[in-house]
Amino acid sequence: MNKYESMTRQELESELNILYASLTEYGEKGLNLDLTRGKPGTEQLDISQEMLGVISTSDDCMSQSGIDCRNYGILDGLPEAKRLFSRLLNIPEKNLIVEGNSSLNIMFDTVARAMLFGVYGSEKPWGMQGHIKFLCPSPGYDRHFAICEAMGIEMIPVDMTPDGPDMDAVEKLVAIDPSIKGIWCVPKFSNPEGYTYSDETVRRFANLKTAAPDFRIFWDNAYAVHEIYDEKVELLDIFEESKKAGNEDKVFYFASTSKITFPGSGVAIMAASENNIIQIKPILSAQTIGFDKINQMRHVKYFKDADGVHAHMKRHADIIRPRFEAVINAFRANLSGIASWTEPRGGYFVNLTVPDGCAKRVFRLAADAGVTLTKAGASFPYGNDPRDRHLRIAPTYPSFADLEMAISILCLCVKAAVIEKMLSAAI
Amino acid sequence: MNKYESMTRQELESELNILYASLTEYGEKGLNLDLTRGKPGTEQLDISQEMLGVISTSDDCMSQSGIDCRNYGILDGLPEAKRLFSRLLNIPEKNLIVEGNSSLNIMFDTVARAMLFGVYGSEKPWGMQGHIKFLCPSPGYDRHFAICEAMGIEMIPVDMTPDGPDMDAVEKLVAIDPSIKGIWCVPKFSNPEGYTYSDETVRRFANLKTAAPDFRIFWDNAYAVHEIYDEKVELLDIFEESKKAGNEDKVFYFASTSKITFPGSGVAIMAASENNIIQIKPILSAQTIGFDKINQMRHVKYFKDADGVHAHMKRHADIIRPRFEAVINAFRANLSGIASWTEPRGGYFVNLTVPDGCAKRVFRLAADAGVTLTKAGASFPYGNDPRDRHLRIAPTYPSFADLEMAISILCLCVKAAVIEKMLSAAI
Repeated sequence: MNKYESMTRQELESELNILYASLTEYGEKGLNLDLTRGKPGTEQLDISQEMLGVISTSDDCMSQSGIDCRNYGILDGLPEAKRLFSRLLNIPEKNLIVEGNSSLNIMFDTVARAMLFGVYGSEKPWGMQGHIKFLCPSPGYDRHFAICEAMGIEMIPVDMTPDGPDMDAVEKLVAIDPSIKGIWCVPKFSNPEGYTYSDETVRRFANLKTAAPDFRIFWDNAYAVHEIYDEKVELLDIFEESKKAGNEDKVFYFASTSKITFPGSGVAIMAASENNIIQIKPILSAQTIGFDKINQMRHVKYFKDADGVHAHMKRHADIIRPRFEAVINAFRANLSGIASWTEPRGGYFVNLTVPDGCAKRVFRLAADAGVTLTKAGASFPYGNDPRDRHLRIAPTYPSFADLEMAISILCLCVKAAVIEKMLSAAI
Repeated sequence: MNKYESMTRQELESELNILYASLTEYGEKGLNLDLTRGKPGTEQLDISQEMLGVISTSDDCMSQSGIDCRNYGILDGLPEAKRLFSRLLNIPEKNLIVEGNSSLNIMFDTVARAMLFGVYGSEKPWGMQGHIKFLCPSPGYDRHFAICEAMGIEMIPVDMTPDGPDMDAVEKLVAIDPSIKGIWCVPKFSNPEGYTYSDETVRRFANLKTAAPDFRIFWDNAYAVHEIYDEKVELLDIFEESKKAGNEDKVFYFASTSKITFPGSGVAIMAASENNIIQIKPILSAQTIGFDKINQMRHVKYFKDADGVHAHMKRHADIIRPRFEAVINAFRANLSGIASWTEPRGGYFVNLTVPDGCAKRVFRLAADAGVTLTKAGASFPYGNDPRDRHLRIAPTYPSFADLEMAISILCLCVKAAVIEKMLSAAI
């Protein structure tokens, strides 16, 4: 129930003018508030600072297995780093490749490799199979979609639900169309809604019957340990489930420490079935002699084990939680009955859903008042939100005071856009 | 003049038996000496050890321009890192992209990008142009050739000379065949011969007329500052020369600190004309948000400026020089008149040329005696040295004592293989 619906036209106009006046006032302040990207704030970066000091002597650089991390060698990751990620993510070491600083880079390379060489089970490289497509649960992560767009892979949007992608639609599409080669998933604390896939969704993914023999689920578990409350949000194990179904070759799994230690200076991993690893490694070995083992060792020495990571994540949670709550409390206080929003238990984003046709207008109004939002539509393939209603809110990067001010302004913008729409509809 | 030529068959057989006896003796020791890869030795790694300690506080992570190296952002390299490499390599900052830990990885990605997207001036992606080819000056770097082999790019060997590739052959081939898309070059202290391209060679490269509008010179300046004597071995500036010829779009330039600081934990760069950079960056931005800026900053803080790098390289030279000299002195003492070898002024390798048809046999004999050499033929496309005569010697990695013993054994193997050949030819 929209509280504005009981107002007369005159009341609405008067309310809108008050909102405009406030926004103009903010606009004149020349603010520069940024809610665009899921970047950790400075306070979060500081909690990993000690990691940079854990390696200094040459002894620090020696692995237990006698590998000197400073020299060439070890394509698929330092054994100690494999062990750490294996325990953290419950993935056997033999299925892990520990790589460089960016899981996005691994995902791009994985698509590029599939285009040039195919995947295990491909009759030909994807790039030699004519027009190919990916399913894109939407709203989703804009950088996933940018990889498809760069590669000329057609993106087919699939609706997101609080339980994950609309699996009826997914199953139907992949069953009949062999040109559909993949789907992008952020299965836990999804970007931007913060949804975690239900057990049923994961099981349906694990049992997916695809017309393409070389279909892959790109399982970007970016927020695997990124709870913001003192609880464990369970995500069913995709590898275990897909193994039961004899379907484990269909999964490419990605994760990183970008939002555990340092974005850009973390460690990223890929995991896959043995058949996939056997297909990938020779190509990877043409690409590089190896990744940064000193940085892998830095992470190992700092965290020691998976518990070390979990303890560290609690410190992140303590910083992030009040920010999520500030956003959600402001939305509750100001936008109830006007808009809806997600209330994630982890991850980096809140998704705000405004009435149809209002998202671009809110973006514009906010920009004029000094608040930069992620572009309306960014979380949809080709930047096209068909109902123009989704806005992604990233509360981690600004100072707490800036965040509060930015959200207050955002709420005014939403109200104004909604009233504008009602007035124009009523003409 | 081969000193064995004056010997009788009986004398040769007796000499060979003595050599076999020595080799058997070594073989029974169960040695495990490795001359295969151009890996720095531990002593070399130690001289960069302090670099790992130069960044610890959050202040250390702040760039002069206010960038927090710990967070996301800055696709093409920290400004300070650009400046360092710009001064070191005499390349304008605007032409530089400072990336991750491996120039090989950048080269692979550059070929992969060309296959998928083309280069500036391509009518179509390389991968859509049917069968394509690269020129491969040989002997050359096996990992360059491995990239072509992985991508299915046909490799055409071109002879190396002490002045660089046989430019008559290069010019002739590229002028008529538009399917030739590139050439691999290690222009300074070439791998494996240690040759530096003459001014004339560089000028001819800079003025190359190619049938393919999208031909590229892959200029892997891996040993740009890797002199082992107190001198500067000059390499003409490919960008300056190609600019004069209006040909600067034809050059892709690569370098890294893998053999300055740490292999695997260094910083690698790519340089190219503005047209090329404009074509590359949007694709790179789909691939990654950015490279490891903390490690870039670590290098900047440690070296301060180009002079810092040069001073550092003198310390490497002091460690490497005696090793090169030990190899060359042993060859002079034992193999004069039997084999020939290069005597490089820098880089990481000595190339040993044995009589035709003997290289594989030397490799085998050495292996049996406990010395692992780079596989005979490895420095040729498809591992095929047509005259079976080249062996690449990498003197940096073993301990000095191991190196001396390995070279002694190698000399015995060469002698034995040469006598075997003479005896079998005389049958």
